[in-house]
Amino acid sequence: MLTQLKTFLKERKIDFFLLPNSDEFFSEYLAEDKKIIQQLTGFTGSNATVIFSSKKDQKSFFFTDGRYILQAKNQLDLNEFEICDLATTPLLSKLSKDVKLGVDPKLTSVVFAKTLQKKFPSVELVETTGSLAPKWSRQARPAGSYFSLPNKITGADSKTKITQVLQGFEADALLLTKPENICWLLNIRGRDLEFTPIFLTYAILFKSGEVELFSQKIPSLKKEIKKIQIDESTTNYWLYSELQKHELELINKPDPIDLLKSQKNPREIFGAIKAHEEDGIALAKFLFWLSNQDSTDEISAAKKLLELRQESPNFFSESFSAISGFASNGAVIHYHSTPETNKTFSARPRNKCGVTLESVESELHNKYEAKTDNKHQESVALQESVTPHLLRGLAKLDSLYLIDSGGQYLSEDFCGTTDVTRTVAIGNPSAEMCENFTRVLKGHIALARAKFPRGTSGAQLDALAREHLWRAGLDYQHGTGHGVGSFLSVHEGPCGISKRAHQELLPGMILSNEPGFYKEGEYGIRIENLMLVEAAEEKNFLKFRTLTLAPIDLDLINFKMLTYPEKKWLKNYHQEIHEKFAKKLSQENEIWLKEICEKFEFSS
Amino acid sequence: MLTQLKTFLKERKIDFFLLPNSDEFFSEYLAEDKKIIQQLTGFTGSNATVIFSSKKDQKSFFFTDGRYILQAKNQLDLNEFEICDLATTPLLSKLSKDVKLGVDPKLTSVVFAKTLQKKFPSVELVETTGSLAPKWSRQARPAGSYFSLPNKITGADSKTKITQVLQGFEADALLLTKPENICWLLNIRGRDLEFTPIFLTYAILFKSGEVELFSQKIPSLKKEIKKIQIDESTTNYWLYSELQKHELELINKPDPIDLLKSQKNPREIFGAIKAHEEDGIALAKFLFWLSNQDSTDEISAAKKLLELRQESPNFFSESFSAISGFASNGAVIHYHSTPETNKTFSARPRNKCGVTLESVESELHNKYEAKTDNKHQESVALQESVTPHLLRGLAKLDSLYLIDSGGQYLSEDFCGTTDVTRTVAIGNPSAEMCENFTRVLKGHIALARAKFPRGTSGAQLDALAREHLWRAGLDYQHGTGHGVGSFLSVHEGPCGISKRAHQELLPGMILSNEPGFYKEGEYGIRIENLMLVEAAEEKNFLKFRTLTLAPIDLDLINFKMLTYPEKKWLKNYHQEIHEKFAKKLSQENEIWLKEICEKFEFSS
Repeated sequence: MLTQLKTFLKERKIDFFLLPNSDEFFSEYLAEDKKIIQQLTGFTGSNATVIFSSKKDQKSFFFTDGRYILQAKNQLDLNEFEICDLATTPLLSKLSKDVKLGVDPKLTSVVFAKTLQKKFPSVELVETTGSLAPKWSRQARPAGSYFSLPNKITGADSKTKITQVLQGFEADALLLTKPENICWLLNIRGRDLEFTPIFLTYAILFKSGEVELFSQKIPSLKKEIKKIQIDESTTNYWLYSELQKHELELINKPDPIDLLKSQKNPREIFGAIKAHEEDGIALAKFLFWLSNQDSTDEISAAKKLLELRQESPNFFSESFSAISGFASNGAVIHYHSTPETNKTFSARPRNKCGVTLESVESELHNKYEAKTDNKHQESVALQESVTPHLLRGLAKLDSLYLIDSGGQYLSEDFCGTTDVTRTVAIGNPSAEMCENFTRVLKGHIALARAKFPRGTSGAQLDALAREHLWRAGLDYQHGTGHGVGSFLSVHEGPCGISKRAHQELLPGMILSNEPGFYKEGEYGIRIENLMLVEAAEEKNFLKFRTLTLAPIDLDLINFKMLTYPEKKWLKNYHQEIHEKFAKKLSQENEIWLKEICEKFEFSS
Repeated sequence: MLTQLKTFLKERKIDFFLLPNSDEFFSEYLAEDKKIIQQLTGFTGSNATVIFSSKKDQKSFFFTDGRYILQAKNQLDLNEFEICDLATTPLLSKLSKDVKLGVDPKLTSVVFAKTLQKKFPSVELVETTGSLAPKWSRQARPAGSYFSLPNKITGADSKTKITQVLQGFEADALLLTKPENICWLLNIRGRDLEFTPIFLTYAILFKSGEVELFSQKIPSLKKEIKKIQIDESTTNYWLYSELQKHELELINKPDPIDLLKSQKNPREIFGAIKAHEEDGIALAKFLFWLSNQDSTDEISAAKKLLELRQESPNFFSESFSAISGFASNGAVIHYHSTPETNKTFSARPRNKCGVTLESVESELHNKYEAKTDNKHQESVALQESVTPHLLRGLAKLDSLYLIDSGGQYLSEDFCGTTDVTRTVAIGNPSAEMCENFTRVLKGHIALARAKFPRGTSGAQLDALAREHLWRAGLDYQHGTGHGVGSFLSVHEGPCGISKRAHQELLPGMILSNEPGFYKEGEYGIRIENLMLVEAAEEKNFLKFRTLTLAPIDLDLINFKMLTYPEKKWLKNYHQEIHEKFAKKLSQENEIWLKEICEKFEFSS
């Protein structure tokens, strides 16, 4: 197939062809037939842009980020591809100005196309969807079907949303290119993608309030339509060229639906809470099941969790492909377990030496209270002297298991999207693992407990989640939080929690809180809950409400490193879970959950 | 004088005249003869822009920020001026497009002049320094004199600095308009201003390395000079117009000296450390003196501190006019005590009930450890039950005294600039005051102890200092930190710690750490130390080293709200002060200092 592409390029006298791992909607999760890069290179990760060389003897350039470098090295033919890290090698740095560069206009945003046109005078926009395209090219997809959500689920009818969008609108029409925004606006959903319940379409919203959907051809426009507003950063160049043919004035502004959609209304919030209750029961069952497994593996565990989610009649689909990784696989941030990489591990027995967390904790508390600090060395010394069993196991089965997963839920009454990560002790994890888990947990709790004045952005809060890792010279190479949709994309803008997230946080936004720590080749830690932004008691202050309900593995906590308010947060969190789920679980499962809550008795 | 101005404007047919509180160098601290706004309005604060109306019956608009609104209301004639808060009323919002607006080109940056020209087609740049100017106008100043600093003080000779500045420089010459940058570059200082030891001048640095100073007239340029680089945000419009007359190509870029100057070299760091030692001794003497005063007042206390600083032969000047405020005056962030506002207070005796901090602490510790939280209500209840004496005094003399001051130091061996704020208990401050002081302190310590990866900006760290106040629904309306010069401006760019401070923090930068809390009409709290950014033990991590050495009032701390690492930081901090100063203080003063350190014995 690569040979076919090179021949095609040579025929067109194109030196290089730039292909992003994307579709014409810039979707995060691609339909199977849009995974062209996977077909051409074998790479299964999400972030990739390939600059294919048309010459036989010249390698093509494969660009990705730090999360995927290792994976790319394993999956790609290194005789054909040179792997480049985007952090150190800018995408266009490998090309000289005079090359003839080809790009697919449907896969290139207007903003990026304009950058390319400035930099490469000989750039050619190579239509690969039409008759010229060879076999490898993406085919036009027949439009999928959609279904409607009733107002009692969406909380606002489409007409009201359209009025909101058009408030202060100055053009004659608005081009909408994000399917999830169109689905939100029209209260519809679809099944075009595996994980995001949307219907793939473009639309034009007219100032009159009318909406016209289209996918292959721009609808014919009335004469009155002179100015059309588009978002150049998320509109592909093909659409842009088509609009230009209509002699319209194009006004470039951010898509106004992004911000409106991110602020959930009371019914959407209700849906999120209900979805998290359904999801939490599955997680309580899963973590109990896991604690009783003599042997399981990454793929089987993820399958079990999916089955437990499917027990709910309201489960619609996963919200993304679950990340299920043991030990070193947990350190691969966007790991996808395959039969070749699948690790087996035993989740029980733990704490069999008659040493319970309470007794260790109490012993530590009495003997060392005054002298300890959070310093690494002192803590290690402590662990060694008091809890030798925790250090005993350096066997490779003593490590951590990380599972990051989520569901889409839809009932007659509500809908919602979940995303949750838990890290579980397997065997006897090392003191270092427990310390780093506790640092991640301290960051997670700091963010969950944060209160902040209106006007604060996620960029300002990001350090609260990192402070304790930083103090030990540690960090994680991903954002702390992303926005989450309402029965829509699990990753949704414009809000977030990271150094680049400058959007002001507003009531009704739902964000993830997911600090982590990854030791390459050894283990990975991540603790992820979703949180809702809501008004605080104090005027002009906001706070978070944690939506996710799933026990956190107390066996991984070095309680000496926690402050009293942190312990209290943990205690309240687990008590809430027990109160909500006690009657919905089997007797053994309920007892297991109750025992977790009882571990906090010593500090109450 | 106001009448004179109005007549002048009418003669020129100018409707409004916009006058900022500034000089032609945009200096932070103005020389006496440049305080035109003070002369015209009576306002003594720093941030002010007045839009004078030429009409007799129309009020002029006086713009300032939240810190100065109250002060402006007290100092201005409200029949003549309408006071506008810049936070809610944009500067130009009061003017219609068609007015004829006058501005002084020497007091207007190029960037602002261009904005005005766009918005007001009839804008006129009214030269007020020349012969046309009436009596109220600023006079041309004779150039002051300067003195040189030896390389052993500056750590780098001027030639080396010039080479640094010209690295990768693409124009033929660089216009320098910031006197402190020119002083840094040439290793000179001057006495043109009261608090900043600089010499007011402009300069042109040629690509050859030559530097020409000027103030009244652009020097004649050789023919080879075709491109000149300027920083439009800090160059006044008069200079810009003069350069335009020379038919030069003007390239707009940030002044490269800003960033170079902010990263102190080893000799500059040595100077900062030495200056803080000198300053710390004065502060230790002052705080001891204060604790023994039966009666003093804001002006006398500030005078005493200045006298104690002057005991050092290396003291050069204050680095700004000290802020010395008791009770409600402490809540005025940029307060300047005058004979009219000066408050008297008694600093002793405190803790006379035989209840020492240790005994209170120990009692609290035993009785309430498990049950307390940081919550306001519980803490208040605790204080009431255990430490009634702390609540007894609601007399108006039971409050807080805040003093923010700094010095410029110059010896044969070193130079440096200091800036420090301490808040001191007067009488028996309320439990609320102690709680809020402790919240401010927790933020201060969190920042002082912070470690962070290279690439982190002050904007990312700002929340660490606010987190604990925010959690109680409180905040402060100023940045957490500003850069500080090396025997230069006490406020120096481009680094800072605030939500807008996006400059990456780099080793050698010196910043203030000054969280606060202000309850209008009641009291003010601020704890300010200067910190140096330096490499941490861990690769690619940076940390802060606190430079300021001055006891923090332990009587204001609610120790129950501190974590162990916070207490340890406090203990180490005071021990360092004692070790450094013990031999340099009187016996009584040393004992006083030692007793502060001993208060930490209970937690060691």
